[in-house]
Amino acid sequence: MTPTLIEKGTHLNVAMVQQSCNADREQNIAATCTAIDQAVKDGAQLVVLQELHTSLYFCQTQCCDNFNLAESIPGPTTDCFSKLAKQHNIVIVTSLFERRAAGVYHNTAVVFEHDGSIAGTYRKMHIPDDPGYHEKFYFTPGDTGFKPINTSVGKLGILICWDQWYPEAARLMTLAGADILIYPTAIGWDPQDDTEEQQRQLDAWITVQRGHAVANGIPVIAVNRVGFEEDTSGRTRGAKFWGNSFAVGPQGEFIGQANATDEIVLQAQIDLHRSEQIRRIWPFLRDRRIDCYQGMSQRIRD
Amino acid sequence: MTPTLIEKGTHLNVAMVQQSCNADREQNIAATCTAIDQAVKDGAQLVVLQELHTSLYFCQTQCCDNFNLAESIPGPTTDCFSKLAKQHNIVIVTSLFERRAAGVYHNTAVVFEHDGSIAGTYRKMHIPDDPGYHEKFYFTPGDTGFKPINTSVGKLGILICWDQWYPEAARLMTLAGADILIYPTAIGWDPQDDTEEQQRQLDAWITVQRGHAVANGIPVIAVNRVGFEEDTSGRTRGAKFWGNSFAVGPQGEFIGQANATDEIVLQAQIDLHRSEQIRRIWPFLRDRRIDCYQGMSQRIRD
Repeated sequence: MTPTLIEKGTHLNVAMVQQSCNADREQNIAATCTAIDQAVKDGAQLVVLQELHTSLYFCQTQCCDNFNLAESIPGPTTDCFSKLAKQHNIVIVTSLFERRAAGVYHNTAVVFEHDGSIAGTYRKMHIPDDPGYHEKFYFTPGDTGFKPINTSVGKLGILICWDQWYPEAARLMTLAGADILIYPTAIGWDPQDDTEEQQRQLDAWITVQRGHAVANGIPVIAVNRVGFEEDTSGRTRGAKFWGNSFAVGPQGEFIGQANATDEIVLQAQIDLHRSEQIRRIWPFLRDRRIDCYQGMSQRIRD
Repeated sequence: MTPTLIEKGTHLNVAMVQQSCNADREQNIAATCTAIDQAVKDGAQLVVLQELHTSLYFCQTQCCDNFNLAESIPGPTTDCFSKLAKQHNIVIVTSLFERRAAGVYHNTAVVFEHDGSIAGTYRKMHIPDDPGYHEKFYFTPGDTGFKPINTSVGKLGILICWDQWYPEAARLMTLAGADILIYPTAIGWDPQDDTEEQQRQLDAWITVQRGHAVANGIPVIAVNRVGFEEDTSGRTRGAKFWGNSFAVGPQGEFIGQANATDEIVLQAQIDLHRSEQIRRIWPFLRDRRIDCYQGMSQRIRD
């Protein structure tokens, strides 16, 4: 992509839709539509939805029937959000369970341009697998690599949930010209953990992403779900999704933050010119030792 | 290095010496010796000194005479701290201006084993250059790469100041087996910046390093100087070094933190077994996409 000097005074109005979900797909989509209506009324140019926003977080258990939730791109969900993007003349970042082929399913973000066209897709590259988060069962690791999606509101560095723990992903998106990093997310507390551990986890989640903002001089947005979802297998005590959707600027400074429980349309105004300013006073990208980073591609340097 | 499983209950008592410096080398070293005495009395096994602790932060101006401050390794400063390490039976992380050859000077950390021997050195890899921080004039970029130094208290991932903004450095040290990341530092405020900007800078500095702790599941220590130092060239208003030396655990959780102004010997007890536990619940290293990180060695992915 051509490098762009973003002019002073260039602001982007972003809305982050933090919601709870249930098993009823139509209800979830209806709630999202209402939230988008509100976001547009409040001036949003870009609306970011949370990870897998049309369904429960079904990865708590391993169950083959859940593959029925997957759909093609284009498909019913992309048709729906394509229309919404066009109707409201906004850019929308959505997240869905993609059926790409028999036996190849992905956790995929689809970005819609304001004319309703698909601006691009990103397939989750880093796939977790923990008790209550059986994503390696459902999601084939992405093959899109780390490439920003070019839109009318900027080059969007879309990453998904587990990617947020990886400085490599943030750096590669930045080096490829992203203007902003965007993380649709589904992360929550294990109700068995004590309050201190829960607080440490939330704080670590926010801190590592603010760290990406600082290290790369780039704004970062994370949108997470709220609400308790049961583990129907009974193996865990379920997940209490911790919300706390937030936006920070290129020094990691908070622009907006939601709480842990409420469904909310969080609005934030991002100053896109600020990255240019910050990278001039803190020119980290200038001083990278690219002659010495080969080890990044090793599993362990032993 | 052989991978070691650190047993439950393995704690490391660290002391961080946050001090102000003046132009009198002997006075600076005497103050450090007093601090080390106190640290040892309080049970320290590892003492970490700040960046360039025997002198003022001379990089505020470009002046050839300052190269006279540089010394060889071994040399008078390493002799002094070698004796102290042996006398107190502790490991010490020091920082000095190294004269390696005519025209090749480095910003170098020297680690002393408790018998007084040199356990290893690290030459600052990322070199800044900003108004008031003319390090590219003084310091040849390091050629040690990112290799932990093996000591009796663990594998120390020594990095220096500007390195702390680079996730690559933290990751490479972790992949090479570091048990802890340690950053001797000299960073301060420009008195011309307003309070909000100063706060953002301090917060960014802490956040990015806590982010390294989280992303790598590793404890992190940063030791910074305090006090105002004048810019004798008169080009800037000098630097108000912001202290705030700190230690965090592998979730980025605070173990200890100093304030912005006081000379202090900050003590922290690091649970070295905790990284093993944290990396089991958050196995980020397992899921790295090493097939897709080649771009890390590019300047810009254009």
